[in-house]
Amino acid sequence: MLRTHTCGELNINNVGSEVTLSGWVQRSRDLGGMTFIDLRDRYGITQLAFNMETNSDLCLKARKLGREYVIQVRGKVEERSSKNTKIPTGDIEIVVDEIIILNLSKTPPFTIEDNTDGGDELRMKYRYLDLRRNQVKQNMELRHRLSIIVRNYMNDMKFMEIETPYLINSTPEGARDFVVPSRMNPNQFYALPQSPQTFKQLLMVAGYDRYFQIVRCFRDEDLRADRQPEFTQIDCEMSFVEQEDILNLFEGLIKHLFKEIKQKEFSDFPRLTWADAMKYYGSDKPDIRFGMKFVELNDVAKGNGFSVFDDAELVVGICAEGCAEYTRKQLDELVDFVKRPQVGANGLVYIKYNTDGILKSSVDKFFTQEQLLEIAKKFNAKEGDLMLIMAGREEKTQVSLSVLRLEMGNRLGFRDPNKFSPLWVIDFPLLEWDEETNRFYAKHHPFTAPKPEDYSMLFTNPKDVRANAYDLVINGVEVGGGSIRIYDRDMQNDMFKVLGMSKEVVNSQFGYLLNAFEYGAPPHGGIAFGFDRLCSIFGGVESIRDFIAFPKNNNGRDTMADAPSTISQSQLDELNIQLIVKE
Amino acid sequence: MLRTHTCGELNINNVGSEVTLSGWVQRSRDLGGMTFIDLRDRYGITQLAFNMETNSDLCLKARKLGREYVIQVRGKVEERSSKNTKIPTGDIEIVVDEIIILNLSKTPPFTIEDNTDGGDELRMKYRYLDLRRNQVKQNMELRHRLSIIVRNYMNDMKFMEIETPYLINSTPEGARDFVVPSRMNPNQFYALPQSPQTFKQLLMVAGYDRYFQIVRCFRDEDLRADRQPEFTQIDCEMSFVEQEDILNLFEGLIKHLFKEIKQKEFSDFPRLTWADAMKYYGSDKPDIRFGMKFVELNDVAKGNGFSVFDDAELVVGICAEGCAEYTRKQLDELVDFVKRPQVGANGLVYIKYNTDGILKSSVDKFFTQEQLLEIAKKFNAKEGDLMLIMAGREEKTQVSLSVLRLEMGNRLGFRDPNKFSPLWVIDFPLLEWDEETNRFYAKHHPFTAPKPEDYSMLFTNPKDVRANAYDLVINGVEVGGGSIRIYDRDMQNDMFKVLGMSKEVVNSQFGYLLNAFEYGAPPHGGIAFGFDRLCSIFGGVESIRDFIAFPKNNNGRDTMADAPSTISQSQLDELNIQLIVKE
Repeated sequence: MLRTHTCGELNINNVGSEVTLSGWVQRSRDLGGMTFIDLRDRYGITQLAFNMETNSDLCLKARKLGREYVIQVRGKVEERSSKNTKIPTGDIEIVVDEIIILNLSKTPPFTIEDNTDGGDELRMKYRYLDLRRNQVKQNMELRHRLSIIVRNYMNDMKFMEIETPYLINSTPEGARDFVVPSRMNPNQFYALPQSPQTFKQLLMVAGYDRYFQIVRCFRDEDLRADRQPEFTQIDCEMSFVEQEDILNLFEGLIKHLFKEIKQKEFSDFPRLTWADAMKYYGSDKPDIRFGMKFVELNDVAKGNGFSVFDDAELVVGICAEGCAEYTRKQLDELVDFVKRPQVGANGLVYIKYNTDGILKSSVDKFFTQEQLLEIAKKFNAKEGDLMLIMAGREEKTQVSLSVLRLEMGNRLGFRDPNKFSPLWVIDFPLLEWDEETNRFYAKHHPFTAPKPEDYSMLFTNPKDVRANAYDLVINGVEVGGGSIRIYDRDMQNDMFKVLGMSKEVVNSQFGYLLNAFEYGAPPHGGIAFGFDRLCSIFGGVESIRDFIAFPKNNNGRDTMADAPSTISQSQLDELNIQLIVKE
Repeated sequence: MLRTHTCGELNINNVGSEVTLSGWVQRSRDLGGMTFIDLRDRYGITQLAFNMETNSDLCLKARKLGREYVIQVRGKVEERSSKNTKIPTGDIEIVVDEIIILNLSKTPPFTIEDNTDGGDELRMKYRYLDLRRNQVKQNMELRHRLSIIVRNYMNDMKFMEIETPYLINSTPEGARDFVVPSRMNPNQFYALPQSPQTFKQLLMVAGYDRYFQIVRCFRDEDLRADRQPEFTQIDCEMSFVEQEDILNLFEGLIKHLFKEIKQKEFSDFPRLTWADAMKYYGSDKPDIRFGMKFVELNDVAKGNGFSVFDDAELVVGICAEGCAEYTRKQLDELVDFVKRPQVGANGLVYIKYNTDGILKSSVDKFFTQEQLLEIAKKFNAKEGDLMLIMAGREEKTQVSLSVLRLEMGNRLGFRDPNKFSPLWVIDFPLLEWDEETNRFYAKHHPFTAPKPEDYSMLFTNPKDVRANAYDLVINGVEVGGGSIRIYDRDMQNDMFKVLGMSKEVVNSQFGYLLNAFEYGAPPHGGIAFGFDRLCSIFGGVESIRDFIAFPKNNNGRDTMADAPSTISQSQLDELNIQLIVKE
């Protein structure tokens, strides 16, 4: 080893030892008689000391070392005269006898500091320098630690990690596949898995009972800010279980992670049906770090001649405690906020419950004080509160109000990243109608079982069929989701049928799964957690990109390695494909 | 849970308990008054008992259960009258009160037994049934266990597991890449990684110090029997190390695995230079479970008028102890063996050292007894031994004799899969000349550093430049390999130059790595183990396919899921590619 110790381990007990350290020059301070260098490696920072009087040659050499030079030093550990209590090595310094420059460094294009001066684009292009920053390093350490804890927990619970293939067949139902041309099978393609769904189900058919895998998945979708074309899942499946068993076991996993990583203990996670989540939060992933539940107002708000309410399918609002003092400007900001295209509401009605007991609203000409008071009672509002009300088509209004609720949560400081509020959302609908393509899609995926009591409605009233499907939500973020699966060939065929898939498509894409169901498939179900997302939740940071060593940008590009890129004609020829050149 | 216990856990202590089990009908035995069913799950087999006298309805129902039906039973644990000492549950049986049929099964196309009647092709098509077989299940369990032990060991050694991207840029130097057309970047392609080589080196530049990853890799090569287009590596890299540090640390890992999995302790692994491995075993991955080292005979064998020897660059042989009694037929078999195209030798000379002291050879007319005795002395042969000699061009003869040596090892029972002989092969040549393309290739890969003392020969005498590259070999199988890397931009450019790569190609494919080397790259090196291969070694089975849940066949096909397959025109259109249809 080119070192006897790391830069993070020497302390007062090592004083007097001869040591060799290797690392990067973080900073250099020239104080005339003395020169100090902070030497950095993954484990910490150690101060190197050079004395102009006792060893001027070496001191001059030290002064010439640039930022991020890689050096090896030999010297003696000594107690510092002025100690740094902020770092574990702060009691000591190395009085250096020898410097070996292992490698030079050009001046980095941004500072390697917590608050770097580098913008997003620059940091991505030089990701290997960005990764040196303490913050990013801590994210990678957290991710590693989480993966170790997850794996050992799953192992203790008798789950086997089994690797499923990355080169599979294309099943473009739902999201788009990335495909891989096969050279050995001309004109045929593999696809990269969007998830190992069918393979983990086959493992259940194969009797593996408890499977998990921390596994990469791929989706060729237009990327939103926080999506990556490749992402990592903690993928799990169990046999001979009911929904309750899965919720309990994986609630245990999440509690274990919170205990290990955050030293936080939780009682049982609350559970909310999908219907209630929509009704009270307008979202299937409610942030329940704060209340501010929806209050439906149809009975008290309609019929007063205010057409916006009268014509609405739903009148619904939230009550922001203590916000009656909001100024005109603040209220206008909220109106502008909900009118943004991302929210898409037509407007916002407010009612202030002033501290003098007077109710003041933006629709005063339509409502008497008594009528406003009746509304306020619905909200359980008290003096000093602000009620915010929206109206329109049910689902659209719920969704818009949900965004406003989160915004109010932000403004009121209710969304503390160090507070964690997990919950289960259950009883999702099995199907989802798509207006654009005029057909049903599976809400979770086509392998999710309908609730037995709803199965009979599959063809007569598909919209109302609920599934044994569940999501784990933490702080308004969907961290995981799963379902009890279909394990009967006929039921699976029914499901494909209601999705409008032809027999030919079903057989070519999923024939092997249907066949497998005929050879003793056990009842089974599972769950998958977004591992990047889980890391970001535990890291208290919104973006998942900060928890991925080499992420892609919103165009799916790795700007550092410059991927994707063109390939050679001979590669294309071997693959039996050609590009379509558009004029 | 649809069970209170698994099929592997009940024993004499549970007698009297009411239990519920779920599993598969492994076998059914109808003994007139009694019917017995072996119920199987991942954890074991439990016997179910049905009595025709006490509950004829249930017994009749039980008799109708087919092989591989999935059932749930409720009943009472009772002590067996005739115990089965071969299984942990052999002392008890369940006297069943209720059967629920959870799923039916068609008769499987082959028996779910250790010695199945299913051929390879059938078992692959119905892999989910093949995976039910005990043998395959044990392989998967071993693989899971190995991965857990590896990860915890690496974690203890302060290695961080960091996930590197699967969608990278194409660098077809060496093996062929699988590529992935990018929809968002028309006419551009990602490649799937052949290994995370450059990314792990960038992690070293980023200061991560110790990285590992159990990671899938991809190579689009024509498949030999024991290659897969996707395979798994234990990929590792360390900074501030020399070769010695890497050998020691990873020898520790392998010893730890042997101790945990096989309860075997090893002293330090032998080390052999590549030159000696070729000289004494004709192979860079010698099986040293047995001796039978090569003996070079140029000085004693040449010059006796036998042109095959006289004209040869190398005359070399092995001594098979106690094989002088080999019959004419056996010797002819050996000659035929070496003449097979896979071995490609022209012939084989034998000398028997008969027990009467007489030397008898296939070239008696060219050699006197004295001359044969001189050869025998070279071999340290004794009466009863058989000497087998080959001659020709050095490398070709070594390789052919190496195959013969392994064959003799097989015949003499020296290659016991339960004996393990690991060794390091070190000092590999940096470069390898390819006759076909008339250029040098990197023996390991282009990022491997030449030995410092050989660097000056890089352009003057490239063939003789040795690398700080090493392989871990167990039982004649290359289990892992690695090297100390180049971390200097100029040296890396020299390496690319000697490989005949143009500046343009270098910059477009590896520019980011060269750039990274300018920002403080530390000395570093690493190793990668073939995880599938490692599993097969510990499992004592030759084929890696048995250790992969869903392997591909030799045409790269998954015959179960029927991948690869054609994709739709709309998929092709979106990707901006078209197929070349050959007439």
